[in-house]
Amino acid sequence: MKAKVYVTIKQNVLDPQGNAVQGALHTLGFNEVGKVRIGKYLEVELDTNDRAQAEERLTVMCEKLLANTVVEDYRFELEG
Amino acid sequence: MKAKVYVTIKQNVLDPQGNAVQGALHTLGFNEVGKVRIGKYLEVELDTNDRAQAEERLTVMCEKLLANTVVEDYRFELEG
Repeated sequence: MKAKVYVTIKQNVLDPQGNAVQGALHTLGFNEVGKVRIGKYLEVELDTNDRAQAEERLTVMCEKLLANTVVEDYRFELEG
Repeated sequence: MKAKVYVTIKQNVLDPQGNAVQGALHTLGFNEVGKVRIGKYLEVELDTNDRAQAEERLTVMCEKLLANTVVEDYRFELEG
């Protein structure tokens, strides 16, 4: 089973990396670009066929390691 | 219009960050975890309603700045 995990910075938290990319895109002439927010995208292979258990375990992984829940949100999708 | 951009490391390129996370998850007791690959996830707001043009411009943004096409792949979705 494969999981796709998205870790994003919470809406009310500043994203300096996103601001830097926005500025760089403007410098390159992409003036239509508004807000840019940058997060992480993880693909995790899981050696299990129990979907419910996989969801539960992934939640713990995100809470413990993959996301900093003080400033980040996470969501995931399971495939296969 | 809003774009979601996914930048991932190419299949045949090593991902040391992913390997480190895989090791950390094993250390935490998540032994069902197999390969972990880490990429970037960007949300970009675009001040345009022309979908075809937005796709074309986003491709150029990815090629020029958002992805390192030597070692990374990219894909994007447009919303709204």
